[in-house]
Amino acid sequence: MVDILHRIGVTAPVSEVYAALTQIDGLAGWWTEDTEGEGDVGGVIRFRFHGAPMPDGFDMKVVDMQPNELVLWEVVDGPAEWIGTRIRFELKREDDFTIVLFRHEGWKEPVEFMYHCSTKWATFLMSLKQLLETGRGEPAPNDVKISNWH
Amino acid sequence: MVDILHRIGVTAPVSEVYAALTQIDGLAGWWTEDTEGEGDVGGVIRFRFHGAPMPDGFDMKVVDMQPNELVLWEVVDGPAEWIGTRIRFELKREDDFTIVLFRHEGWKEPVEFMYHCSTKWATFLMSLKQLLETGRGEPAPNDVKISNWH
Repeated sequence: MVDILHRIGVTAPVSEVYAALTQIDGLAGWWTEDTEGEGDVGGVIRFRFHGAPMPDGFDMKVVDMQPNELVLWEVVDGPAEWIGTRIRFELKREDDFTIVLFRHEGWKEPVEFMYHCSTKWATFLMSLKQLLETGRGEPAPNDVKISNWH
Repeated sequence: MVDILHRIGVTAPVSEVYAALTQIDGLAGWWTEDTEGEGDVGGVIRFRFHGAPMPDGFDMKVVDMQPNELVLWEVVDGPAEWIGTRIRFELKREDDFTIVLFRHEGWKEPVEFMYHCSTKWATFLMSLKQLLETGRGEPAPNDVKISNWH
């Protein structure tokens, strides 16, 4: 089992970062504009992407939420490599930053698609940082393109 | 043992990407301006950073080079977590892109510093892409800042 790890620091209150990870309009502001569903524990959030050669979306079941501390999703639909993996956001304050420790855990094999997803997650987390610091993120379809896989 | 993985695609010939990974002025154009040393197999390249709360540099021994296909370094000096780890760049052509498969392999534990380094590597690889596509990267000290750890 292998994991994707990232760490960013955002100059915004932890409550605002938590909101951007748990509210549908927050998520739509940094990952993909086409985000729908139910952001509470037990709910499923549907993230859709259009026009990329990659899978067109992911359905995430919200497994755990600890206000201002933790958000945990499990992938219940999407590409085969993602199903059953988990996406974990841990939040904490440090200096004048809200730190996000990100982990996409439980990949079976380090396939080339995992290399791609690791870099894409980094650019989307930078989009989260931008959203909170400037009011404007770069969610799909206007996301940063990193390769022929977009 | 855990690894950092990334994948980018660059719209430049593979020979130019290989040069940016093996020549001192190429490396200085996307990772850190303060790069010195010997880029051939057996040589050591010294990368230095200034003003960050993180370690001030890394010394990489060039372990293997396959023209337009592979560059492999071993970390011989730097922060304890990095020493003995390896940095691998594999190159290939796909569609109209030169694909870079990046792997920083052999971390003993997924410490918080590894989360940070994973995200920083993503932004530096995007700097490599920019350098080759626009003529101008974002090497340190003008690198993209991702957190309180810079």
